[in-house]
Amino acid sequence: MSKNIPDIDTDISSWYNKIVIKAGLADYGPVKGTMVIKPYGFQLWENIKEVFDSMIKKTGHTNAYFPLLIPKSFLAKEAEHVDGFAKECAVVTHTRLKSEDNDIVVDPESRLEEEVIIRPTSETVIWSMYKKWIQSYRDLPILINQWANVVRWEMRTRLFLRTTEFLWQEGHTAHKNKQEAEKETLDILELYRKLAEDYLAVPVFTGLKTESEKFAGADRTYCIEAMMLDKRALQAGTSHNLGQNFAKAFDVKFQTEDNKEEFVWATSWGISTRLIGGIILAHGDQKGLKIPPNIAPIQVVLIPIFRDAEQRQEIERYIHSIIGSLEDIGARYFVDWSDSSPGYKFNEWEMKGVPVRMEIGPRDVESNKVVLVRRDNGEKYSISFDELSDKINMLLIDIQSSLFNQAKSFRDNNTHTVQSYEEFKNIIESGGFIRCGWDGSDETESKIKEETKATIRCIPFDENPKNLNCIYSGGPAKHEVIYAKAY
Amino acid sequence: MSKNIPDIDTDISSWYNKIVIKAGLADYGPVKGTMVIKPYGFQLWENIKEVFDSMIKKTGHTNAYFPLLIPKSFLAKEAEHVDGFAKECAVVTHTRLKSEDNDIVVDPESRLEEEVIIRPTSETVIWSMYKKWIQSYRDLPILINQWANVVRWEMRTRLFLRTTEFLWQEGHTAHKNKQEAEKETLDILELYRKLAEDYLAVPVFTGLKTESEKFAGADRTYCIEAMMLDKRALQAGTSHNLGQNFAKAFDVKFQTEDNKEEFVWATSWGISTRLIGGIILAHGDQKGLKIPPNIAPIQVVLIPIFRDAEQRQEIERYIHSIIGSLEDIGARYFVDWSDSSPGYKFNEWEMKGVPVRMEIGPRDVESNKVVLVRRDNGEKYSISFDELSDKINMLLIDIQSSLFNQAKSFRDNNTHTVQSYEEFKNIIESGGFIRCGWDGSDETESKIKEETKATIRCIPFDENPKNLNCIYSGGPAKHEVIYAKAY
Repeated sequence: MSKNIPDIDTDISSWYNKIVIKAGLADYGPVKGTMVIKPYGFQLWENIKEVFDSMIKKTGHTNAYFPLLIPKSFLAKEAEHVDGFAKECAVVTHTRLKSEDNDIVVDPESRLEEEVIIRPTSETVIWSMYKKWIQSYRDLPILINQWANVVRWEMRTRLFLRTTEFLWQEGHTAHKNKQEAEKETLDILELYRKLAEDYLAVPVFTGLKTESEKFAGADRTYCIEAMMLDKRALQAGTSHNLGQNFAKAFDVKFQTEDNKEEFVWATSWGISTRLIGGIILAHGDQKGLKIPPNIAPIQVVLIPIFRDAEQRQEIERYIHSIIGSLEDIGARYFVDWSDSSPGYKFNEWEMKGVPVRMEIGPRDVESNKVVLVRRDNGEKYSISFDELSDKINMLLIDIQSSLFNQAKSFRDNNTHTVQSYEEFKNIIESGGFIRCGWDGSDETESKIKEETKATIRCIPFDENPKNLNCIYSGGPAKHEVIYAKAY
Repeated sequence: MSKNIPDIDTDISSWYNKIVIKAGLADYGPVKGTMVIKPYGFQLWENIKEVFDSMIKKTGHTNAYFPLLIPKSFLAKEAEHVDGFAKECAVVTHTRLKSEDNDIVVDPESRLEEEVIIRPTSETVIWSMYKKWIQSYRDLPILINQWANVVRWEMRTRLFLRTTEFLWQEGHTAHKNKQEAEKETLDILELYRKLAEDYLAVPVFTGLKTESEKFAGADRTYCIEAMMLDKRALQAGTSHNLGQNFAKAFDVKFQTEDNKEEFVWATSWGISTRLIGGIILAHGDQKGLKIPPNIAPIQVVLIPIFRDAEQRQEIERYIHSIIGSLEDIGARYFVDWSDSSPGYKFNEWEMKGVPVRMEIGPRDVESNKVVLVRRDNGEKYSISFDELSDKINMLLIDIQSSLFNQAKSFRDNNTHTVQSYEEFKNIIESGGFIRCGWDGSDETESKIKEETKATIRCIPFDENPKNLNCIYSGGPAKHEVIYAKAY
């Protein structure tokens, strides 16, 4: 099987495209750049969703749903926002089709007076509603999130990583002052970090985006940035302090506790199905995916091995009691009774990244044992039935932390400090993150981007610019930043 | 408060519009016919979703996600389907906006070669994918569902009942033979009945749609039909046996077990946010909503009653232990500490339809009691702390079944048999369902619709056409049917 999979070390891009399809995560939709998320991929998304949904509900947020369709004029209300999104908007202009000459055509009489766009993000439609809902400080804070689809008409697309339509959550909160909005922005970033590190097993740098990289309409954008196996960066989640920009654009004022009128303070924040791309590219190997147990659709796959109907019957009985103990510990499992050979199944489920494989043959039934194999390192154990629950629990925890530790070592080993711009260019060329000084100027940032395609991924929270010089201009560093080529 | 609410008996339409807004379920979106589902309404949807999602997962279905955007040409592939949906399609023609004369306009250079439509339903895009995924009988059945938004450009819209965009689930299954597809269609209908009756407390008639009322592209459409308080019918869910229509339209064949090639058999089925409209219109009264406990976002609302800080402190302590026992039994609760008066809060939460109100005043703290009030019938109880969990459990179960029984009596009392077409017209005019004979002709069906606006809601499973004559033509009845005016 793996002979059909492109080499992960020399051609990770083809490896990625092939694995996404072969593992049954997604497929290409008929409209250019769109994606079908297949059941296995969607279960992964459901698990991620469930984890994050519970995190935000515990912190007082609630879900709601805002319309897909936005009047064209709304986008224009916030100057930076329209610049950021106008070039990739799906525009609805008509509302009927009709038959003509054996063909089906757009009915010109159904032309809309004002065109509407499909949301690329929902700030504008949501703030048009907040204007109706917010009068006084008593109406604040509003802590709303929505799980939704959005459309951005991208030129170059990749399954999960950049698609014309994607699924995400977008939080949109409203606050009575700047401090509260800033706190919300950072609290959410911490939830994103926790989701990435504790569930996806993907270590991330947390920090602030530069002015040129921030969200169109934000005062400040915070982000989590992960390193993929090709040493490129993946922006995995962003949390924006929108200041009063959208409140001003939509004229949303509130009466303060001391009877003044003030514009409302806002945040917005999002993570998307892109995270699935991040999991694939952070943990994969030549055999395929490695899915972290905490979010794996299937944590344990059971492969019965038998020659005849009699053996099969015995194994079925045995598996029945095994399933009992798996259900007791709440493990997500699947028994593969399909017609393929055991060897084929081993490869298949390794490719799909299931953390633990359980092999059950006639000898295992006799000796009241099973064989367990770890996907992450291939270690094999023969375990007695009585030990099974404990061992599975232990393995799932261990695989989860091993995947994280491995990804973290990889990232740390490939995050460099440099002494010269020459060295900088060499590392960017061969791959890796660079922590270095930046003089804070747009000019330096854009020159480096032009010359190397590397961008400032973030100004990390733990920056220490003292005694650093700018890697490009040589002047004193305003910030220590993380540079990388990014997805 | 209720003086601002239109009279439910004489003007249920205005009552409905007002209650949906005032209870915080939904609001009007900026694009005509679109809806914002506010947190309280969305929690209701989340609860419905959770119940049904678990039902379908237990029966072997799995979720996936297909693209929002569909090539225009796809719709045309199934003849009846295009007739059914072409007249209400949102059509995307362009993909960029640009600035011009201080305005933002559609960039004519971004015109798409082939226009795409926003899915009004997903049969076409899904069957274009099934063509890739299905080769042999081993690939069948496919039992996929998706939770998604769809857009149908409706002329006359009502919050929840008929909106330009709505949320729904759409199941799309593929089978190796007709029997299996028919069984799936009926199994799902049974889940819909269960959801409606056991969770929404809405009794439904189950049956078959006539040819003229069936889904555009189906061989047979089954449905659940409910009676609203104005005695009109609400189609609350439909399950379609699509035969081989979409398989033929998209050329989806499979190799059978005996090595033949055959077109695949299909079903599709859906329920939507319309169900929320159904709950409102099946259970409301002049005071507002009555939400069935099994799906209520808040099952018990706690209203503390106090005069000063000292009393408040005592009550806070007491409520702390009450919350403990509510959490033990898994009841969904909310404590209303807002500044409004108790009387205002009573009205507010009655309007929002919370099944049980708990009043806690200083005397209750002293005597270790609480006051409970049922939303459905206003009965009031003074209960000791020790009895609390049991009483709450009991009340929630009782309110659930009372709401169902009340709705069922109402429906049964307003479902008539008639002797003449005169009588038929009188009842349709004054409101109600009619069970009567139908000769099975399109002509009769359309004449009755023309003359009375009543439609055949379904041919109920328990029909008994023997000895019946057609209420219109007088000829022998082919079916016993249920007639009503519908939403």
